[in-house]
Amino acid sequence: MGLCQRWRRLRLLGLQASGLRTAAVPTPPPWLTERLGLFEELWAVQVKKLASKAQEESRTIKISLPGGQKVDAVAWNTTPYQLAQQISSTLADTAVAAQVNGELYDLERPLETDSDLRFLTFDSPEGKAVFWHSSTHVLGAAAEQFLGAVLCRGPSTECGFYHDFFLGKERTVQGSELPVLERICQEFAASAQPFRRLEASRDQLRQLFKDNPFKLHVIEEKVTGPQATVYGCGTLVDLCRGPHLRHTGQIGEIKLLTNSSSLWRSSGLPETLQRVSGISFPTTALLRAWEAWREQAELRDHRRIGKEQELFFFHELSPGSCFFLPRGTRVYNALVAFIRAEYAHRGFSEVKTPTLFSTKLWEKSGHWEHYKEDMFALQPSDSDSSACSQSDHPTSQPPDTLALKPMNCPAHCLMFAHRPRSWRELPLRLADFGALHRAEASGSLGGLTRLRCFQQDDAHIFCAPDQLEAEIYGCLDFLRSVYAVLGFSFHLALSTRPSGFLGEPCLWDQAEQLLQQSLEAFGEPWDLSPGDGAFYGPKIDVHLRDALGRPHQCGTIQLDFQLPLRFDLQYKGQAGNLERPVLIHRAVLGSVERLLGVLAESCGGKWPLWLSPFQVAVIPVGTEQEEYAREVQQTLQAAGLASDLDADPGLTLSRRVRRAQLAHYNFQFVVGRKEQSNRTVNVRTRDNQRLGERGLAEATRRLLELQNTRVPNAEDIF
Amino acid sequence: MGLCQRWRRLRLLGLQASGLRTAAVPTPPPWLTERLGLFEELWAVQVKKLASKAQEESRTIKISLPGGQKVDAVAWNTTPYQLAQQISSTLADTAVAAQVNGELYDLERPLETDSDLRFLTFDSPEGKAVFWHSSTHVLGAAAEQFLGAVLCRGPSTECGFYHDFFLGKERTVQGSELPVLERICQEFAASAQPFRRLEASRDQLRQLFKDNPFKLHVIEEKVTGPQATVYGCGTLVDLCRGPHLRHTGQIGEIKLLTNSSSLWRSSGLPETLQRVSGISFPTTALLRAWEAWREQAELRDHRRIGKEQELFFFHELSPGSCFFLPRGTRVYNALVAFIRAEYAHRGFSEVKTPTLFSTKLWEKSGHWEHYKEDMFALQPSDSDSSACSQSDHPTSQPPDTLALKPMNCPAHCLMFAHRPRSWRELPLRLADFGALHRAEASGSLGGLTRLRCFQQDDAHIFCAPDQLEAEIYGCLDFLRSVYAVLGFSFHLALSTRPSGFLGEPCLWDQAEQLLQQSLEAFGEPWDLSPGDGAFYGPKIDVHLRDALGRPHQCGTIQLDFQLPLRFDLQYKGQAGNLERPVLIHRAVLGSVERLLGVLAESCGGKWPLWLSPFQVAVIPVGTEQEEYAREVQQTLQAAGLASDLDADPGLTLSRRVRRAQLAHYNFQFVVGRKEQSNRTVNVRTRDNQRLGERGLAEATRRLLELQNTRVPNAEDIF
Repeated sequence: MGLCQRWRRLRLLGLQASGLRTAAVPTPPPWLTERLGLFEELWAVQVKKLASKAQEESRTIKISLPGGQKVDAVAWNTTPYQLAQQISSTLADTAVAAQVNGELYDLERPLETDSDLRFLTFDSPEGKAVFWHSSTHVLGAAAEQFLGAVLCRGPSTECGFYHDFFLGKERTVQGSELPVLERICQEFAASAQPFRRLEASRDQLRQLFKDNPFKLHVIEEKVTGPQATVYGCGTLVDLCRGPHLRHTGQIGEIKLLTNSSSLWRSSGLPETLQRVSGISFPTTALLRAWEAWREQAELRDHRRIGKEQELFFFHELSPGSCFFLPRGTRVYNALVAFIRAEYAHRGFSEVKTPTLFSTKLWEKSGHWEHYKEDMFALQPSDSDSSACSQSDHPTSQPPDTLALKPMNCPAHCLMFAHRPRSWRELPLRLADFGALHRAEASGSLGGLTRLRCFQQDDAHIFCAPDQLEAEIYGCLDFLRSVYAVLGFSFHLALSTRPSGFLGEPCLWDQAEQLLQQSLEAFGEPWDLSPGDGAFYGPKIDVHLRDALGRPHQCGTIQLDFQLPLRFDLQYKGQAGNLERPVLIHRAVLGSVERLLGVLAESCGGKWPLWLSPFQVAVIPVGTEQEEYAREVQQTLQAAGLASDLDADPGLTLSRRVRRAQLAHYNFQFVVGRKEQSNRTVNVRTRDNQRLGERGLAEATRRLLELQNTRVPNAEDIF
Repeated sequence: MGLCQRWRRLRLLGLQASGLRTAAVPTPPPWLTERLGLFEELWAVQVKKLASKAQEESRTIKISLPGGQKVDAVAWNTTPYQLAQQISSTLADTAVAAQVNGELYDLERPLETDSDLRFLTFDSPEGKAVFWHSSTHVLGAAAEQFLGAVLCRGPSTECGFYHDFFLGKERTVQGSELPVLERICQEFAASAQPFRRLEASRDQLRQLFKDNPFKLHVIEEKVTGPQATVYGCGTLVDLCRGPHLRHTGQIGEIKLLTNSSSLWRSSGLPETLQRVSGISFPTTALLRAWEAWREQAELRDHRRIGKEQELFFFHELSPGSCFFLPRGTRVYNALVAFIRAEYAHRGFSEVKTPTLFSTKLWEKSGHWEHYKEDMFALQPSDSDSSACSQSDHPTSQPPDTLALKPMNCPAHCLMFAHRPRSWRELPLRLADFGALHRAEASGSLGGLTRLRCFQQDDAHIFCAPDQLEAEIYGCLDFLRSVYAVLGFSFHLALSTRPSGFLGEPCLWDQAEQLLQQSLEAFGEPWDLSPGDGAFYGPKIDVHLRDALGRPHQCGTIQLDFQLPLRFDLQYKGQAGNLERPVLIHRAVLGSVERLLGVLAESCGGKWPLWLSPFQVAVIPVGTEQEEYAREVQQTLQAAGLASDLDADPGLTLSRRVRRAQLAHYNFQFVVGRKEQSNRTVNVRTRDNQRLGERGLAEATRRLLELQNTRVPNAEDIF
């Protein structure tokens, strides 16, 4: 199908898209026609060149296949796709790309030398990435033609893809336009346009994209070699590393999900772009499965649970900060109290440090250099210079700029350093629930997952080098017992020095070895992530899985050699010399806010008793028992148990019990005439087990016991 | 004594002041001579005028004396001093000023009409103010002559006086110079210079102070009438309302205390001034008594206790914020836990609200208009405009300026308003321990008394008008029980509408009456402070007295009619109409930080068990018991009790027990061979009571019981 034919076919689709406010495209715009023409020209040259190369360098090469089998192929001629066909037609149909000696290849790109060949399918994360990345080209082609978009970025994400493009300063994409755009994408995909890989010189690139300032910028800034690859697909020509599907027909289903705006950040070109995101699948069955999963996940979405259960809300006057309602605060405080109890057992000392610090502190810690853009700085005020007295608060003129702390570590270093320290005080484990502020972009905010203001169960351990192994073990043990109570499994990874690490290599050697020993001693399985450490020290990443098996990163254990240097931290060693402590950053919950969100989703709003903001619903049988019921409710409340009274006379007893169970109250205490005269309660659980009559005092005591021991199944063992 | 004689006498003193870096003053500087000359000229005119007035208007007037007695006097002739002499020579000697028909008079100012006369002595706060204000003129005169100072302000304070003056841009007063300056002040006082009151016209004022830009500024800005008073005293001529002592000889003792710098804030004249503060007394005996009191107070100073007990510290990188060390955090958390327990009993719901809000919120609440200068505002950043998505966090462009909350009330109003409310939910009592930030001038900061960052036991009650009386009673009862546990007595005052109040007078009538009824029902004595309410509603001020009888203002109960209006708060009433709730602001501790300071001073570092960061010192008799002692300490620690081990082999048992008692450990658990084999501890108290051997488990249980019931005397009833 020639260019004009293709174009016409797509244009017809466009004319059907009556809801879409399209730039009118009766014929291809001249720049697009020109670009396509140039591409076809260069493509013809490349085809010729490859053909002659295939003739000249035609020799037999050895290809190792996944099973270990070796086959012969012809250099510059045989493609991975041909070999996939030899193996099975199913593989040929489902493969999305190839891995040739570790490098990603288009399936139709000829092999050059002896190779180790693997095939990627949609089943693997890498295969999904290729699939979704190819799909975003389909979206790009549709946007280019039917919205007159100037294309920018189009990456795959963890769960789909998006494309950013420019529509002029005024024009935005409306939610109502997505269905039409989606239909155009589906038609484009169904037309099975092949992806054609072209190698082009810088000059050719500049020529191809002379009408797209974003691409020109990328060519100048990011393309380092003399050549780069360009892909053609239908009417689309895009600068892209690849690889891609063989053709768009492999995309069985494509679904557009959201529209939003984003910012092109590169210098000189600040522009508001339009972002459309979507997801795609090889088959309809896979799409249906995903839709079912998403429906389930949405039911469990913590934002939905937070709203339904009145745990928290957000408000535009404090973007990125959460308002915790009474019930949410109860869960929050229960989490903090849990960690506090562990601190008492484990020899951690809680401290409270300020929120506002002079930027001099952040310069000293290095945050100002590396993290400035993510910090909230204050307008300089002259209130600081109004007077200076003999108080405890030394001042200097002019006053320093202040910034809200994004982390607690520098404050803890000041605390370590505020008086001379002795080896007898080590390990010093300082814990802090202080509020942290980070200037996250508003586009990245979402529920409790990413906030601008949050608290961590943050602690810093200052210890002697020979205490490090035991301390790391202690941190791991801390993680294990907390996650066990929360019902999380977890997986550990040791991240070693990255390129550009700071400090002595021999120090790193020792530390990495030591972390490894602690991990071995700990006995849980762990992985090595070479090069994933922070520049200031190696770390242990903790990947936890919630009750639904979904991964989250919450806890962390990081060694830090740099802060003790920067703050010149010292202690008097056993021999009397001044020595430098090692610093461990650690957290188990991480952001308490985020963990609360994870927990809400993990338990689907059915909180275990100790965390529950719905512990007991007290339900009188009739209005005569309402006063006694109120007394029961107040008794529970005063004992620190979250209880509510449901004396609604408009509903039958069984309806009220059912209502309490649906609202996930762990227990229902029903009180009738008999319970009132016996001063007892009749106990049911949210799973409608009837546990019978208990004394009020006994029931209260038992609830407190179950709450304090933080059992996951209080209803079963009441 | 003529001017030159006085000058010479003082100059000689100055020459003796060898330590003082004085501007060389061999003769009075010309401007001073000129001013004094002009003053003497005007004074002579005034004396003549008064004499002729005394002759013309000489008539008998009736004067009521303090005891109710009435005496005759001659208008424009008889002075309060003469009448004091008639009453008793002691009164004449000790009186510092008079109150004539409510107006303050110099003792030597002739009475004009029939009058009600009272005498002020140093015993009353008003008398002290006159005494100290007169003393600051002595300091001013000394500074003018011996430092070449250009005088600015010189007010009395709650405990003495200070004088601000300008010495040029470079020169500051050194601490080492204070003793010499003090000696000059003493000599000046002893020379018994009279205070002479002169009424001068604006032109005369301008002429007198033509060399003092500060006074000229005050004349232009503050002097509203055609005349103002000027006082002469020795070589000093100063613009001043008075009244003053008769002469400086009444100042028996004068003591200079501190030197610092301060800022002249008025427009056009930003200058750094020098501030010297002092105190003075009529007699040496009173000075000695004050010195003894101060020594005692310094021993109890919370900053000293905070340092000695390692409770907290301050750091120049976060001026005005406190760093709470592990022990201070323990006290802090115990206070918060106490209030939380009361919340559970009293139906308050704890919530957590953000720290950072758009200034739009503060505009809405009125804080931006009235309180802007005391708020920390953030530098506008463009991170907010980087992207905007379909998240929970709606954004607008350009981003709002953000400011740190100085109070929780507006956030609680947002929470009330975030969904429709019903009468069934009222009273809604929202409590919040959120960190508050206020941009206090650095000169006003001091220990924990005034901070830039603090937390309150802040709660806001939203209720229906007919619930107000019960809620106010509940707030008063809350105060009473908390202060009883803390060992504070308190006194209440009802502050009614000020001039310029907002809202309907009839609403105020009702509210003031209602508060009065609640106070009557409460049964504790209370005062009326007419006109002391806030512009938005009447309030009950709570003045507490600590164990030393010192007054503090911590708790507050304030009605607010304005915020519910500003935030348009509504609830559905019982009849189905939308109604407006009333808002009560209340706090019991006030700033938790400040109250911690008050408590530290009140108990002099001997904390009651439940607040104590030094609950138990575990002391092994010999090194063989060290391991068991450590086990005991860890058992206590894990139970949540603050315990330390003192196994120092260099000290005898009795020395270590004594050391623990001096450090105010509530209990010492001594463990020897017998205790180890019995798994017991031998209990002593910090007052060295020997309570004998107890089982470890039993002792732990008992400590927890005493801690949880928050008894003040755990040592006596263990």
